[in-house]
Amino acid sequence: MIKDNDIIIIGCGAAGGTAAQFARKTDRKSQITIFEKGKYPQYSKCGLPYAISGKINKIENLIEFSSEWFKNNKINLLLGTSVEKIDAENKVVIAKKGNEPIEKNYSKLIIATGASPQIPPIKNIFENDKLIGNIFTLRTIDDAKKISSSIKKDDNATIIGAGLIGLEMADSLNNLGMNVTVVEALPNILQNTLDQDMSNIVFKEISTKVKIFTNHLADSIENKFGNVNNVSIKNKKTGEEKTIETDLLIIATGLKPNISLSKNAGCKIGNTGHISVNRECRTSIKNIFAIGDCTEFYDIVTKKPVAIGLGSIAVRQGITAGINASGGKYMVPDGVLQTCTSEFFGIEIAAVGTNIKDYPAVSGRYNGLSLPHYFPGGKPISMKVFIDEKTSRIISAQAVGDKAAKRIDTFACAILGGMTVETFRKLETAYAPPIAPTLDAETLVCDFASIKLNRKR
Amino acid sequence: MIKDNDIIIIGCGAAGGTAAQFARKTDRKSQITIFEKGKYPQYSKCGLPYAISGKINKIENLIEFSSEWFKNNKINLLLGTSVEKIDAENKVVIAKKGNEPIEKNYSKLIIATGASPQIPPIKNIFENDKLIGNIFTLRTIDDAKKISSSIKKDDNATIIGAGLIGLEMADSLNNLGMNVTVVEALPNILQNTLDQDMSNIVFKEISTKVKIFTNHLADSIENKFGNVNNVSIKNKKTGEEKTIETDLLIIATGLKPNISLSKNAGCKIGNTGHISVNRECRTSIKNIFAIGDCTEFYDIVTKKPVAIGLGSIAVRQGITAGINASGGKYMVPDGVLQTCTSEFFGIEIAAVGTNIKDYPAVSGRYNGLSLPHYFPGGKPISMKVFIDEKTSRIISAQAVGDKAAKRIDTFACAILGGMTVETFRKLETAYAPPIAPTLDAETLVCDFASIKLNRKR
Repeated sequence: MIKDNDIIIIGCGAAGGTAAQFARKTDRKSQITIFEKGKYPQYSKCGLPYAISGKINKIENLIEFSSEWFKNNKINLLLGTSVEKIDAENKVVIAKKGNEPIEKNYSKLIIATGASPQIPPIKNIFENDKLIGNIFTLRTIDDAKKISSSIKKDDNATIIGAGLIGLEMADSLNNLGMNVTVVEALPNILQNTLDQDMSNIVFKEISTKVKIFTNHLADSIENKFGNVNNVSIKNKKTGEEKTIETDLLIIATGLKPNISLSKNAGCKIGNTGHISVNRECRTSIKNIFAIGDCTEFYDIVTKKPVAIGLGSIAVRQGITAGINASGGKYMVPDGVLQTCTSEFFGIEIAAVGTNIKDYPAVSGRYNGLSLPHYFPGGKPISMKVFIDEKTSRIISAQAVGDKAAKRIDTFACAILGGMTVETFRKLETAYAPPIAPTLDAETLVCDFASIKLNRKR
Repeated sequence: MIKDNDIIIIGCGAAGGTAAQFARKTDRKSQITIFEKGKYPQYSKCGLPYAISGKINKIENLIEFSSEWFKNNKINLLLGTSVEKIDAENKVVIAKKGNEPIEKNYSKLIIATGASPQIPPIKNIFENDKLIGNIFTLRTIDDAKKISSSIKKDDNATIIGAGLIGLEMADSLNNLGMNVTVVEALPNILQNTLDQDMSNIVFKEISTKVKIFTNHLADSIENKFGNVNNVSIKNKKTGEEKTIETDLLIIATGLKPNISLSKNAGCKIGNTGHISVNRECRTSIKNIFAIGDCTEFYDIVTKKPVAIGLGSIAVRQGITAGINASGGKYMVPDGVLQTCTSEFFGIEIAAVGTNIKDYPAVSGRYNGLSLPHYFPGGKPISMKVFIDEKTSRIISAQAVGDKAAKRIDTFACAILGGMTVETFRKLETAYAPPIAPTLDAETLVCDFASIKLNRKR
């Protein structure tokens, strides 16, 4: 007979692996099984660009918890195991490890099937349903290994997509001596993270090091002996076409959630096309949880569902589902902040809160230095903040420059706590000449927003 | 006849100078006069150790707003002008510029008289009411100039007091090649800022570079040809005495507020011996404001009065008094956080909230790295947090290590917003491998505190 603490987890990424750990912490006697279709235990996907660049010197270092770790913690991790069906009625998961069929009952199921790279409609990119040689996405250790073996100094690399991963890869390949071109369909780089005035600071800096075409669609590719040779791109406004010589093409145009198993099992799929979950990470089906990149959850400000695309949220959902599946009680906050950060070409960027287009908000903007003007070595910091016009609450913030991420963490705290701009602008930030000015960019940007807000009232 | 916007400010430090600027911003027609007894316009006192070390290459760079700036903004700054009396009944300030007497009416008076170094009772330290040669405090540009001219490589320097300024000076003098000894009467260094377990991290590092005697009182000095030659110190526990050869002695044992003018004028003096003010920075006397190091205000958690000893609070009070004195309306939050930071010997430290001894609180403690373990270059970060046992609210935090100040700013925001540890531990901090781990020290230290809190309940 199946016990109440027989847990199956599908997927051993950041979400699934973390869920297993916290299920184990919560109940030492839980039976925990993980089905992972890949061949590696839990590793950091976000670290892949740095394993390619050589900053992380062995790609296996990315493995955060080894097979031994899972074994020592009595977690049954089955690698190379594809789940074929979830039978929710009978609480059975049907899988295959190689050719060997597996049927296993669960009392609690945690779905952490993640997401897969989205491939834009570029002509001639596939041959026999496979990407042409030297065209890659970056999602797995195997992807990274293939990319690494295709890198040659002075060769030409093209990256489709100027989001976080696209620019991290542009930096990595540039550091390895490749001639890098970045092609972005949207009008600006980092458009999902920063407003144009903020991303322009980054653009200005990195466009001296790599070629960037914004507002351009990758149209088609040509291959030579089975490897990519040229990419044709088209200006979305003028229709003008250009051909870029390319020895290596990386596609970094976002993700699509892996939801077919969940959909077939009857889990409710939300408006964004991801699995709907609640604060306990439960799906619409009893005893089935879902976490990570295959799920959606509410934005803390707009209360509208947004896709979970961040490792930090995946881990927090993993903690939650793991504890709840093992009989504990834990909830995520009643919305996600989507705090994110990255660094490329020596520039740190960070943001928190939805990039809100149609929300009644006023913004503040500040450019300054990280240190008092009399102290040498101050670095540029630019900040932007958005305030809810009605409530005066801070709803989102962006930063480019010195300690951008930690400055944004303070705003994340303010948003989570529902703090108004009037309170935040009076925050006593830590001051010392070698560390920060008496009035930091964080509070000064709020002064500007507050003044604008008061004028509007 | 005196107009309603005739403002006199006594003192042109960070508090007084800022008040003048914001009074001007609020009302372009205010008549603003500043009486400053020193010979310099507004400069950064906190920057003095770095002007001595040579990090700031000209001491005059510390001047944040020049006499010209005040002139251009139609602020009448009278340097070298000592105020002798405040006649609150007739709203008159009586001062002297050199031998020239000045009597000036005000409609609003802002007292920003600051504080002066406290000299501990060390035998033979004075001769004719003057400190013996090569014995200095550090409060003014002139102090810093005198110290600078007494520094000689390979000479012996002794610093009395291992607080922030004492250790900043120890670092500066050590960098200039002096043999530095630090003498502290309390059991630990940085005792007003960090708990022992946290300050020990600093102690361990810096005691390899300078000699430190904690629990030792400076007992007496000997001079040779009018300059300090030896300092005798005594172990407070054992009574054992030691003589330290000393060519330069710096006293950094705290401040006493300059309140005699205010006291004689009838302003209420609070329990800490500083001027009592409210959220508008008003004293007990109508039309008289007080700001900066001569004042006390409520701690945001305990609601008990604490002395204002931080430039960051002085500036915020200056903004408040300046706006209110000029007819605007502005208030500081209903308590001070006392967020503070410093850096010495390459270690950044920061803290927020009162160092609470008799408060029902539980603490959490975390030592870790600033980056995910797989990413090279992670730096040590140690954090401690205190939680109110009854309300679960975060009440104070301490950090030593990487980006300590910015991490503490996030806690400052949480304390200002009254956030509980249960909410804060779920904060989505910004994650990217080269910048911060998925679960940052900030939230992990709260996990530990939360577990302790729940056990106690």
